[in-house]
Amino acid sequence: MDDNKVKIIFQPSGRRGEVSKGISVIEASRLLGADIEALCGEKKVCGKCKIRIEEGSFETYGVESQPSHVSPWQEEEDKFINSEERQTGYRLGCVSKVLKDLLIFVPEESRAGKQVVSKAARDIYIEHNPAVKLCYVEVEKPTFEEPTGDYERICAELEKKYGLNDLTIDIEALRQLPTALRRGDWKVTVSVWMDREVIRVRPGQSNQSYGVAIDVGTTTLAAYFCNLATMEVIDTVSMMNPQCKYGEDVMSRITYHMMNDDGLEKMNRDIIEALNSIIDQAIEGTYPQKRKVKKKKGEEGVDEWQEVPEEGKIYLRLTREDIEDITICCNTAMHHILLNLDPEHVGLAPFPPVIHHSLDIKARDLGLSVNPSSYVFVLPNEAGFVGADNVGVLIAEEPYHKDEIQLIIDIGTNGELVLGNKEKLISSSCATGPALEGAQLSFGMRAAPGAIERIKIDPDTHEVDYKVIGRDAWRMYSEPQKMRAKGICGSGILDLLAELYKSGIVTKTGVFNKKKQKSDRFRRNPDSGQNEFVLAWAEETSIKKDIVITQKDVRQIQLAKGALYAGCKLMLQRLGVDEVDKVKIAGAFGTHIDREKALIMGLFPDCAIEKIVSVGNAAGDGCRAALLNREKRTEANWISRNVEYIELTVEENFQEEFMRAMHLPHMTDEFPHLKGLVPEEILNQK
Amino acid sequence: MDDNKVKIIFQPSGRRGEVSKGISVIEASRLLGADIEALCGEKKVCGKCKIRIEEGSFETYGVESQPSHVSPWQEEEDKFINSEERQTGYRLGCVSKVLKDLLIFVPEESRAGKQVVSKAARDIYIEHNPAVKLCYVEVEKPTFEEPTGDYERICAELEKKYGLNDLTIDIEALRQLPTALRRGDWKVTVSVWMDREVIRVRPGQSNQSYGVAIDVGTTTLAAYFCNLATMEVIDTVSMMNPQCKYGEDVMSRITYHMMNDDGLEKMNRDIIEALNSIIDQAIEGTYPQKRKVKKKKGEEGVDEWQEVPEEGKIYLRLTREDIEDITICCNTAMHHILLNLDPEHVGLAPFPPVIHHSLDIKARDLGLSVNPSSYVFVLPNEAGFVGADNVGVLIAEEPYHKDEIQLIIDIGTNGELVLGNKEKLISSSCATGPALEGAQLSFGMRAAPGAIERIKIDPDTHEVDYKVIGRDAWRMYSEPQKMRAKGICGSGILDLLAELYKSGIVTKTGVFNKKKQKSDRFRRNPDSGQNEFVLAWAEETSIKKDIVITQKDVRQIQLAKGALYAGCKLMLQRLGVDEVDKVKIAGAFGTHIDREKALIMGLFPDCAIEKIVSVGNAAGDGCRAALLNREKRTEANWISRNVEYIELTVEENFQEEFMRAMHLPHMTDEFPHLKGLVPEEILNQK
Repeated sequence: MDDNKVKIIFQPSGRRGEVSKGISVIEASRLLGADIEALCGEKKVCGKCKIRIEEGSFETYGVESQPSHVSPWQEEEDKFINSEERQTGYRLGCVSKVLKDLLIFVPEESRAGKQVVSKAARDIYIEHNPAVKLCYVEVEKPTFEEPTGDYERICAELEKKYGLNDLTIDIEALRQLPTALRRGDWKVTVSVWMDREVIRVRPGQSNQSYGVAIDVGTTTLAAYFCNLATMEVIDTVSMMNPQCKYGEDVMSRITYHMMNDDGLEKMNRDIIEALNSIIDQAIEGTYPQKRKVKKKKGEEGVDEWQEVPEEGKIYLRLTREDIEDITICCNTAMHHILLNLDPEHVGLAPFPPVIHHSLDIKARDLGLSVNPSSYVFVLPNEAGFVGADNVGVLIAEEPYHKDEIQLIIDIGTNGELVLGNKEKLISSSCATGPALEGAQLSFGMRAAPGAIERIKIDPDTHEVDYKVIGRDAWRMYSEPQKMRAKGICGSGILDLLAELYKSGIVTKTGVFNKKKQKSDRFRRNPDSGQNEFVLAWAEETSIKKDIVITQKDVRQIQLAKGALYAGCKLMLQRLGVDEVDKVKIAGAFGTHIDREKALIMGLFPDCAIEKIVSVGNAAGDGCRAALLNREKRTEANWISRNVEYIELTVEENFQEEFMRAMHLPHMTDEFPHLKGLVPEEILNQK
Repeated sequence: MDDNKVKIIFQPSGRRGEVSKGISVIEASRLLGADIEALCGEKKVCGKCKIRIEEGSFETYGVESQPSHVSPWQEEEDKFINSEERQTGYRLGCVSKVLKDLLIFVPEESRAGKQVVSKAARDIYIEHNPAVKLCYVEVEKPTFEEPTGDYERICAELEKKYGLNDLTIDIEALRQLPTALRRGDWKVTVSVWMDREVIRVRPGQSNQSYGVAIDVGTTTLAAYFCNLATMEVIDTVSMMNPQCKYGEDVMSRITYHMMNDDGLEKMNRDIIEALNSIIDQAIEGTYPQKRKVKKKKGEEGVDEWQEVPEEGKIYLRLTREDIEDITICCNTAMHHILLNLDPEHVGLAPFPPVIHHSLDIKARDLGLSVNPSSYVFVLPNEAGFVGADNVGVLIAEEPYHKDEIQLIIDIGTNGELVLGNKEKLISSSCATGPALEGAQLSFGMRAAPGAIERIKIDPDTHEVDYKVIGRDAWRMYSEPQKMRAKGICGSGILDLLAELYKSGIVTKTGVFNKKKQKSDRFRRNPDSGQNEFVLAWAEETSIKKDIVITQKDVRQIQLAKGALYAGCKLMLQRLGVDEVDKVKIAGAFGTHIDREKALIMGLFPDCAIEKIVSVGNAAGDGCRAALLNREKRTEANWISRNVEYIELTVEENFQEEFMRAMHLPHMTDEFPHLKGLVPEEILNQK
C-alpha cells in the first residue's frame, strides 16, 4: 500500500476507499461520495460537519481509546463539541485531518440532504379504535360529607360516563392527578389505555393525543407520527439504523453480539438512542424553524434564536409527554436487540425466537423518552427471521381474507416472503443484503437529493438518461452541471440492472459483454482492474467523479435478486401452485418501483405485469394500523401463529435454485410475460 | 447562653441539650443519652460511630453546605467514610468535636444495641395463597419441525400442567428466559404473579420463594421476611423511619413538604433508602456473620473476612433477586410520601387522599432493589390519616366477621381507632404523637437493651422497682450497677403514669402533688426549674445520670392518652353504644402492654379487664396476611371502602372531650372497673 495513502470507511453509508494522507475528513468524504453537511464551506464556523471517529485503526480494532489517526483537537471544535461528545470521539470534519486508517460514523444530523422518505404512509383503510382513548370528566370537589380520594372520584365518573370499570392507574399518572384536578378546577382529561389503565391526567378538556408507529428495519428506521384522535399522519421521519456500524445484515449483528461481551448492550443502546432521536425530530417538526438573530453592534448579551413560522401554518408545539402510544415492528433479530433479548439462538438452527407473542412494555422500561406512563406495543414475531415486520405486512394487506393467491415480497436487507390466501399462508425469509436498498454499492446511496432514481439506456447507442431526486428534469433536458448527481438509490438500482440487461451491456450471467459495448461509458478501471459502466460523468455530479456501476456492484445486485427469486420459486413449489393471482412488492422503495423493470431483472417468477402492485412500506402501514386500531393487535397475534414458516435454506433444492436465480431472465418458455419487454435475442442468448 | 456551651440535638431519638464546647460527639451523645455505638472505645479504629451532621447551626438552618460547627476532618476518617458520604455530612463521632450548635443524625447502624423487635410477628391464621407461585415445567428442545419460541414453549406447559393461560411476561423475566432454559436443560422454575404474569425464570427446580411485608410507621419501620412457600417468618427487621428528621408526626412532615420545594423528594428518597437497607439486613441475615482474619506477620495481602457459621444452623444465603413479592402498609401521609404522591391535600380539610385503592407497582418503579420484575402491593387507604395500616389491622382482626362489638386501638405516632362489628364499622384517627412510643420524653428511648420496660412504685414509700430490657432480674434483686438503665421505652411509660397516679405522686390532673411526696425521688431541677421524679439513680444507669420523668414529660403522656381516650369516647357516642365487648390494643408495644396499667392511666373508656387483649402489631400482621394470601388483598379493598370514617376534630364536642380526657380516671361512677385497682381516695380525689 502507498505510504501516502490511508484507508477510510464512512458509516452508515459504507462508502470506502483510499485517500491521500493529510486531507480533511470532509475532503475525504467528498472524494468517496459520503454525505457530510458543510454549510459554512469549511470555514470552521457552522459546526454542521460533526462526525464520530469509531476506530482509529483497523488493525487495533477497539483497543485505543484516543484515536491518534486524526490530527489533534483544534480550539474551534470547543464551540460545537462538548466534553462528553469529545470523549466518545466526536470531531469536526473540516478541521480533522486523516493521518492513518479510519472508520468514521456520520451522524444523521451531519448528513447532507434530508432523506426523501420513500417510506411514506399510504392511504389504507383503518378502523378508528386506538389503544389510548381520551375521556373528559368533571367531578365534585371533596367535602366533609364526601371526602373521597382524587382517584376514586374520577373513577366513578369514568364508569358513569364511559362505562369503564376495574381501571388501574400508572404510578406516574397518579402523581399528576392531584395537581391536574386542582389546576383544572375539577375538570380533567384522562388518557386510558386499552380500557384498562389510566396513563395520563391533564387539567381541563383536551382532544390532543398522539402516537408513533415505528418500523425498525435492519438498515432504515421509519416512524409515522400520528394523531390518535383523527388518525392523521402528522409527520414521517426516517433515519439510518445506527447499528449498521456493527454489521450490514442481521447475521453479522448476531455475530457481533456473540463475539463481544458488550455487543448486545451497545447495539441496544444505539437503537434506543436512535428511536429517541427520531421521536425528537417528530416533536421538533411541530415547532417553527429557528433562525439565529445576531445582536446589533453595541447591544448587550449573546445572539438569540428566533422562531420563523411559515405563514398560515399551524404549529402543534407538542412535547414528548404528548406521545401516549407507540407500536413497533421489526424482524426477529432487530426485535431481540431492541428489547435486549439474547439474539444468539434465533441465529442458530432451528432458529427459535425468545418470544413470538406481542409485548406491551412501558416506554420507560425500554428507555424511550415519551409520556412516562405510556406503553410500547411490539408486534408479534412469526418464526426464524420473519418477525413482527412481516406481521405488519400481513395485517396491512390481509391476504388471509382473500380468495386470490397473493405473493407478497417485502424487500429489505432481509427479504421476507408470504404466499397464499385464506386457505393457507406460508412465509419465509431470504438474505438479500442491503444492495437493493442502495447500500454497499460503489455509488449506492439512500434516497436523498442527488440520488439517481430513474435510468434509461438507449439500446442502440448505450447513452444514459437519468433523473435525480430533487430535480424534475431528466438529464437529456438539462445542462450537465445542473444535475449534481451524487449516487444511485434503491429504485435506480432496479432500473439500472434491467436496462443494462435489456440493452445487452451485461449478459444473462451478469457479466459485462465486452463485444457488445457501443459507447465509451464501458471501461476498465485502471486502479481496481474491474470493468465498469459510467452512469454520470464527473461534470454532471456534485462529487466531481464519474458515477459508475462496477462488475462487483452488478454481482451484489444479482445476489440480492437471486435470493428473492429463489425464495419465491421454492415457496410456489411448497404451496403447489404454478402462478399467483397477485404479486405485491413492499419495502422501503416499494412506492417508487417500476414493475416492468422489476419483472425484467427477475426479482420474482414471471407473471403478467398487471398482476404486480406496489404496496409501499406495508410493514409500516401494519404497524400504524395496530397503533390506530387495537383490534389489529389481536389480529396480529392470531395471524403470527397461523402462518406456516418455511426455512428455505434447509429445502432440498435451495442451493441449486439460488444459483439459477442469479441469472437474469432468459429462455422464453419460463418467462412468457417478458415477450415484448425484452428483445428476443437477449432472452434467447445462449 | 453560656459562651462555653453549645446546643445539640440528636435525631431520630430527639435527645437534646447543652454540652460543653469542644467535647466529642460521642461524649455529647453519652451525656444526652443518645445511643451511639463505640466498639473500640473511641480509639478511632472501629468506624462504628459514623454520624451525619444535618445542620451546622440552628440559626442559619439549611443554608451552609459545609457545617463548620464541628472540628475539621481527620485523616482517620478516610478509612471509614468515602468521599460521597463525606459530602453528605458523615463524620466519625469519636473524632468530631462540637464547636457550635449542631443537629446530628445517628444512622441505624451506628446506634448502640439492636432494637428489641416488639413488632414481632404473631401466630395468626392465614390461608396459604400467595400472589407469587412457583411452577416447575419441563419442555422439549426446539427442532426444525417444532421451532416454536422459548416463551410459547413454557406457556404451553404452564397451561397444560397448571391451567394458566393468557399469561404475560415481564421484560426483565423475558431477558432471563433463553439462558435459564438452556442452563436448566429445558427444565425451569417459573414464578407467576397473580396467575397473570411471569416475573422470574430460573434453571432447574426450586421451591425457594420469598417475600417481605413492611409496616411503614411514622416512627418505626418493621419488616417481616417470609418464605412464600412455607409461610414461615424467617426474620423480622425493624429500624427507625429516617423521615423523623423532617418532623416527628405526619402533619409536620406534610408541612415540611409544603415549605420546601424538594421536601417530598427528600423524604421519599430517605424512606426508599431505608426500605432498601431493611431488605439488605434481611438478606444479610441469611449468611453467617463474618470475622476479620488478620494476616499473619510476613504473609502477603490484606486482612480477610471469614464467615463464622453457628453450628447446626442452616443458612439460606439469599440474594435480593430472591425477594419476589412485597406488601406495604402505612398511614395515608406515609403512603403518599412513600409513593411520591403530593401529600398536601391529605393534610388539609376535608383531607382527601390521592387514592384509596390498593396499588400494584413494579418494585423497580419505586426504586426498591429486589427481584427486578416483582411487584409491590400497597394496601388501600381508608380516609383522612387512617390509611393502609389500619386496613392491615382490619384484615388481621376481621371485626367485620364478628357479632361482638370491638374497639381496636392501634397506638402509634398517629393513633388509629376502629369500632363496631359485622353490622357496622367506624374508624378515626387521633394525633397521639410519639410519646407513647418512647420518643420525645427526657429519657424516652426505643425498646433496646437498657430500656426500662416495667415499673412498680410502692404506694407507702414511693420506692421504685423496675426491669430493663436485656436483664431478667428486677432492680430490687440486683446490684445497682448491674442494671445499666439507659432510658424508658413505650411499655415502661404506660406503667409509669399508672403507678405515679395510683401512688398519689401525681394528681388526677397530672400535676406532681408536692404535699404527698414520700421520698427524695421527687425534686425540683435547679437548671430547668421543673419538678421531676427520679426513676433510676445515676449509679444504676449506663449514662451516669439520674433517669427522671419531668412534669413536662407527664404532660406529653397526658396529651397522647387524652387524644386516644377522647377519640374512643366520641366513637362510642357516634355508634350509640355504652360499652364494648372487646378492647384490642395494637401497636409497636402492643405485645408488652400491661392491660391493668393501660386501664388505670385511662387510655380508653372503662371496661372489664378481661375484655382487654393485646394483639401486637396487627397492621404488620395484616400486611403479612396480604403477602401470603392474595384473597386478603381483595378483602382489604372491600373493607377499606366499607368502614365509615369519622373526622374527630370536626365533632361538636371534640375539644371538650379532649380536655376532660387529659385527666386521669377518677369519679368512681364513670370507672366502675377501677375499683380495687386504684385506691378509693385516689379515685375520689377532688
